[in-house]
Amino acid sequence: MGINVRVLVILLLLVFGYVFYIGASTSPIIVFVFSVCIVSFLLSIYLTKWVLSKDEGPPEMSQISEAIRDGAEGFFRTQYGTISKMALLLALVILSIYLFRNTTPQQESSGLGRATSAYITVAAFLLGALCSGVAGYVGMWVSVRANVRVSSAARRSAREALQVAVRAGGFSALVVVGMAVIGIAILYATFYVWLGVDSPGSMKVTDLPLLLVGYGFGASFVALFAQLGGGIYTKAADVGADLVGKVEQGIPEDDPRNPAVIADLVGDNVGDCAARGADLFESIAAEIISAMILGGTMAQRCKIEDPSGFILFPLVVHSFDLVVSSIGILSIRSTRDSSVKAPIEDPMTILQKGYSVTIVLAILTFAGSTRWLLYTEQAPSAWLNFALCGLVGIITAYVFVWITKYYTDYKHEPVRTLALSSSTGHGTNIIAGVSLGLESTALPVLVISISIISAFWLGHTSGLVDETGSPTGGLFGTAVATMGMLSTAAYILTMDMFGPIADNAGGIVEMSQQPESVREITDVLDAVGNTTKATTKGFAIGSAALASFLLFSAYMDEVASFAHESFKQVDIAIPEVFIGGLLGSMLIFLFSAWACAAVGRTAQEVVKEVRRQFIERPGIMDYKEKPDYGRCVAIVASASLREMIKPGALAIVSPIVVGFLFRVLGHYTGHPLLGAKVVAALLMFATVSGILMALFLNTAGGAWDNAKKYIETGALGGKGSDSHKAAVTGDTVGDPFKDTAGPSLHVLIKMLATITLVMAPVFL
Amino acid sequence: MGINVRVLVILLLLVFGYVFYIGASTSPIIVFVFSVCIVSFLLSIYLTKWVLSKDEGPPEMSQISEAIRDGAEGFFRTQYGTISKMALLLALVILSIYLFRNTTPQQESSGLGRATSAYITVAAFLLGALCSGVAGYVGMWVSVRANVRVSSAARRSAREALQVAVRAGGFSALVVVGMAVIGIAILYATFYVWLGVDSPGSMKVTDLPLLLVGYGFGASFVALFAQLGGGIYTKAADVGADLVGKVEQGIPEDDPRNPAVIADLVGDNVGDCAARGADLFESIAAEIISAMILGGTMAQRCKIEDPSGFILFPLVVHSFDLVVSSIGILSIRSTRDSSVKAPIEDPMTILQKGYSVTIVLAILTFAGSTRWLLYTEQAPSAWLNFALCGLVGIITAYVFVWITKYYTDYKHEPVRTLALSSSTGHGTNIIAGVSLGLESTALPVLVISISIISAFWLGHTSGLVDETGSPTGGLFGTAVATMGMLSTAAYILTMDMFGPIADNAGGIVEMSQQPESVREITDVLDAVGNTTKATTKGFAIGSAALASFLLFSAYMDEVASFAHESFKQVDIAIPEVFIGGLLGSMLIFLFSAWACAAVGRTAQEVVKEVRRQFIERPGIMDYKEKPDYGRCVAIVASASLREMIKPGALAIVSPIVVGFLFRVLGHYTGHPLLGAKVVAALLMFATVSGILMALFLNTAGGAWDNAKKYIETGALGGKGSDSHKAAVTGDTVGDPFKDTAGPSLHVLIKMLATITLVMAPVFL
Repeated sequence: MGINVRVLVILLLLVFGYVFYIGASTSPIIVFVFSVCIVSFLLSIYLTKWVLSKDEGPPEMSQISEAIRDGAEGFFRTQYGTISKMALLLALVILSIYLFRNTTPQQESSGLGRATSAYITVAAFLLGALCSGVAGYVGMWVSVRANVRVSSAARRSAREALQVAVRAGGFSALVVVGMAVIGIAILYATFYVWLGVDSPGSMKVTDLPLLLVGYGFGASFVALFAQLGGGIYTKAADVGADLVGKVEQGIPEDDPRNPAVIADLVGDNVGDCAARGADLFESIAAEIISAMILGGTMAQRCKIEDPSGFILFPLVVHSFDLVVSSIGILSIRSTRDSSVKAPIEDPMTILQKGYSVTIVLAILTFAGSTRWLLYTEQAPSAWLNFALCGLVGIITAYVFVWITKYYTDYKHEPVRTLALSSSTGHGTNIIAGVSLGLESTALPVLVISISIISAFWLGHTSGLVDETGSPTGGLFGTAVATMGMLSTAAYILTMDMFGPIADNAGGIVEMSQQPESVREITDVLDAVGNTTKATTKGFAIGSAALASFLLFSAYMDEVASFAHESFKQVDIAIPEVFIGGLLGSMLIFLFSAWACAAVGRTAQEVVKEVRRQFIERPGIMDYKEKPDYGRCVAIVASASLREMIKPGALAIVSPIVVGFLFRVLGHYTGHPLLGAKVVAALLMFATVSGILMALFLNTAGGAWDNAKKYIETGALGGKGSDSHKAAVTGDTVGDPFKDTAGPSLHVLIKMLATITLVMAPVFL
Repeated sequence: MGINVRVLVILLLLVFGYVFYIGASTSPIIVFVFSVCIVSFLLSIYLTKWVLSKDEGPPEMSQISEAIRDGAEGFFRTQYGTISKMALLLALVILSIYLFRNTTPQQESSGLGRATSAYITVAAFLLGALCSGVAGYVGMWVSVRANVRVSSAARRSAREALQVAVRAGGFSALVVVGMAVIGIAILYATFYVWLGVDSPGSMKVTDLPLLLVGYGFGASFVALFAQLGGGIYTKAADVGADLVGKVEQGIPEDDPRNPAVIADLVGDNVGDCAARGADLFESIAAEIISAMILGGTMAQRCKIEDPSGFILFPLVVHSFDLVVSSIGILSIRSTRDSSVKAPIEDPMTILQKGYSVTIVLAILTFAGSTRWLLYTEQAPSAWLNFALCGLVGIITAYVFVWITKYYTDYKHEPVRTLALSSSTGHGTNIIAGVSLGLESTALPVLVISISIISAFWLGHTSGLVDETGSPTGGLFGTAVATMGMLSTAAYILTMDMFGPIADNAGGIVEMSQQPESVREITDVLDAVGNTTKATTKGFAIGSAALASFLLFSAYMDEVASFAHESFKQVDIAIPEVFIGGLLGSMLIFLFSAWACAAVGRTAQEVVKEVRRQFIERPGIMDYKEKPDYGRCVAIVASASLREMIKPGALAIVSPIVVGFLFRVLGHYTGHPLLGAKVVAALLMFATVSGILMALFLNTAGGAWDNAKKYIETGALGGKGSDSHKAAVTGDTVGDPFKDTAGPSLHVLIKMLATITLVMAPVFL
């Protein structure tokens, strides 16, 4: 054991040494990024140790926690086993495509041969996939350990429970963001050193970021299946448990008599924690890479002497993100003397305070980064414009959060109206919820539109011009706004992870039949978690919209360089291109259909199993017999693994097939770029429809959930009334909307953007 | 009275004389079109006389029928009063825009001054609006008279009842289609003669069709509000009646004890008959005009000597449509001796037989028309290619009908699965229905894609080339395919109108408490009506998709001619254009939200009123007290008039506002065409999203309805079981989907296409 530690330390030092060596050979900025990431990893180790040092509570709690842990880890192993096999297969496909494709003139001139570029792309893809898997694992690993510690802390004080949940969430947030940043930085530095970039006769540094796209694709590939599998798991178990437990038998949520309750709690971990970790990892990776590509392109066009500042800017922004979010997380402290029971402070207020700290610091560091990296002699005030772009992004994020709250919080009009419509029956509740969800797409779209236009014009007027004197900074301005939006990503992710941990803790408290006062504390935390979860989704969609718009222009540049001709326009007046758009939108509808249907089908299996257990073991209801939790866990696990394949395969295969078919059609009709154009339209229409559909699904789901919660506070007849039953129906319908189809769409949008970039050679 | 008839005859002869005079001065083709239309009007008068000669049954039937008639006519008057005020207002807006706009070079060269073009556009708009109103009125007028006659005939034989319903539907179908055709023909001929077209120094005949756009806009403007108002009316009454009557009180549909039953029956007339009449009128008008524009543009580019064949082709196709559909309608005969009760033949088979007759004749006449009008010396085989395009359209229509049936008929897998999901509760039923609806968008999109591509390539390879020798017939090929699709429109509309008449007849039979055997006959007819209604919707969407694609290219031509520069591309890689697309898709979501919410809100009012009546008049349930039907009628009527304004105004105002704002933005940033481009993107994305959303809403609604019907046949526990209750919830949710939001979207798509054309001057 002693030797092992010594070996480990030596190994780690070697790795660090290597990392810093290549970093130093690349750019001092990379060294800065490495240092920040390593410090934040050390901080995250401290946070875990702190969380793990808390007690696991009485044996009845830790037993339940162990059952959840076993279920979650078992599913994770099987799920990621399947995913890794698919990833390897896809890696082979990519390899063969790249080995047989044409090379671009730049690549030829830089001596980047076919084989090298094939291996680079595949290596980046596999590394992205691996890191995404680790991000998911970390999220789940900490949540299955923190849940019981939060339950136990809730027996002592609300504040302590909150702190444990936040620090556990903070741990995985720091790891996820840090890993995205350091992974890209290592790849960048390695390629830089290995390919001898910027030395005469080799590649230019401004072309380097395009080689990283495989990383983003790998990350989104894994995230898609993680989100689908986890989302189907969690919601099938939830819906199944609710339909029999709550509606038919009238027992409360998370009641130990419900045979599906452990499956439901496992679902929170694999669906919300693991999947959201992978999702956010992939969001940040995609956004960093697309911004790096745009920065490189722009720096090249403007002939900026040292382009590394523009290229590495996103990495620095996220390094500061790690710093400021850590400060925000640590600012949430336990009151000094936890034995003195102060009146329960609203946990939302505490989290908001931490967020305010983070956001103020983020604005300052963001402005500082723009001055440091984006200052150029050619356009002395450009950095100021870009700082304002960042501010636009931060404000957009704020407004998005506010809109989501307006539509999903029962303090406001929409959810109240929805709750009221439950009093006239199941039907009017569903109609009102669907309308609410559809309507809620309007404001975010207006906000996104305004921020794209303002950021674009701020960038456009930054003073950066190309050789011909025309302004070029517009798109990069949009990219900077996206970075601004994500400049507090680690804190947002912390708040998001907090939700399912609190939810799980509540479940453990209920199942171990703790006193009402403990349950009250976890209930409050759970409700706050619901709101933070909903707002993170708004956030994820906003960034997905911006990131895909950026990747889209990277795609057009890539096609142009392959096709040796300019590709600046995607003209939707051409019938084939119009059809590409039609197919892109249809893809979103079909994907959502299959994702929802998968939950519906699996839930039906759960319902039948739970009904069977209640009939065959009549003692369950009087606590005389124990339900067979394991059977429900097994059913949900195997069903969700089976069901995740169809929608996932659809998302991956269809852009490739469409591009290839139209390439062939274009070949015979004399339109060499047809395949690429049709795919571009597919991508754009899918992005637009995907944003709207995801907004609809997430908001409707959140609103139904909270309308039910509002009635449960005693309004309109309260628990058990007919209104409540109608509201539970709405909640059930909303579950697959908001936790399976909706979040999978975020990933899908970005995956489409990266897959088209990586697969571009197929379409030409 | 004697004098009146004589005056009328003289007046009519004068009108006919004028019509034939201008027709003869224009083209012999117009004379042919006029003659066919007049013959079919005479036939439709014969059909009405035949229907009206049937007896109204016993007094208890005719009393109910009178109540329905009063309700429907009262609502129609108020609704169209409101609509006509709005139309006049809009006419003033159009007039002022056109009086202050720039004129195009063509217009200047042809001496078409600002004022003339303003008056022409406004006159066309008002005539379109008026004709659309008449189309709606005719649909409702006959249905409120035929319903009771069908009920009465059902007491004698199923076949006779079927025949009465079909002939009543046929009457309004012939009037609607005939009026669309003759209205456009009269406008065309009048402008031709008045403007001295084709004489030296004046307008060219190929530019003439663009002047007709106002007619299409007027028609779609009225249709939009007719569909919204009528759709909200019918479904609010239906949902309200079902939620209290069926779900809470457990009484059957159309039971006389339900206070909302008369409102529900009135709704069928104003929603399904009047609105669908206006909708189809507008579809046909838009499609004829867009095809005429394209024909003119193409004939001009190809320098075809006599372009009138290409321009007037759509009018001839629809003249033949009138002929072949009449034959189809008349082929459905009563058995010779109606007193001999033969075993009930499946009415669907009878209708299908008539359809087969119609379609075979349509293929023949279509091929004949292409040979007659599209034959040119320059490309001797072009007519054959276009005939094949027509065939593509007819096949597309067939496949669409088949797909709709597959997804909505309970003989097939999807609805069975949906019904099965009802057995696990309300929640799973809704989830399954939503997934089914979303999934059902895939096949139609694939079919539309294939038919657009094939028709485009058939047209492209037709041999028609422009001056530079490049093929130009592609888009016109697509237009011909659309015409092929609509070449049996009158028969399709007959089958569609048949549905609500049969539904109403069933209601009258139930309310007048006829024996079970009579109810059985109307039930069978009603079920068939549901299927034909669903298939017409598939049909309407397919044609909307094609028609808007055509109008889109007309829009681009129009913008180019105003802007004095080429406008061939809508480049979605420009941020503003992308935003236009985002806003277009969002418009569809928001419009659907408001349409559904309007139904939900109004239904809640009905629920409260019906509950109140049941409480305050406890004798209702034992037939001791009469419910106050009038109160429900009044509530629904005033609510639907109020609720139709918001979504309707959204649809009209938003493209204008978006175009104007971006025009201003473009002005300040040096992009003169920005407004027009953004609007083009808005239009395209709205079309794509609108098609998908309408498919989703219609199919989900139809499937829910039939899943309920399937359970009512005794499957899965039958009527009154828990499965049935869950299925009724689904049906209730589906009501506003399939009869309010869905059909309104068809109209919206085409209205957007025409409004952008008419309002183009605002964007430049």
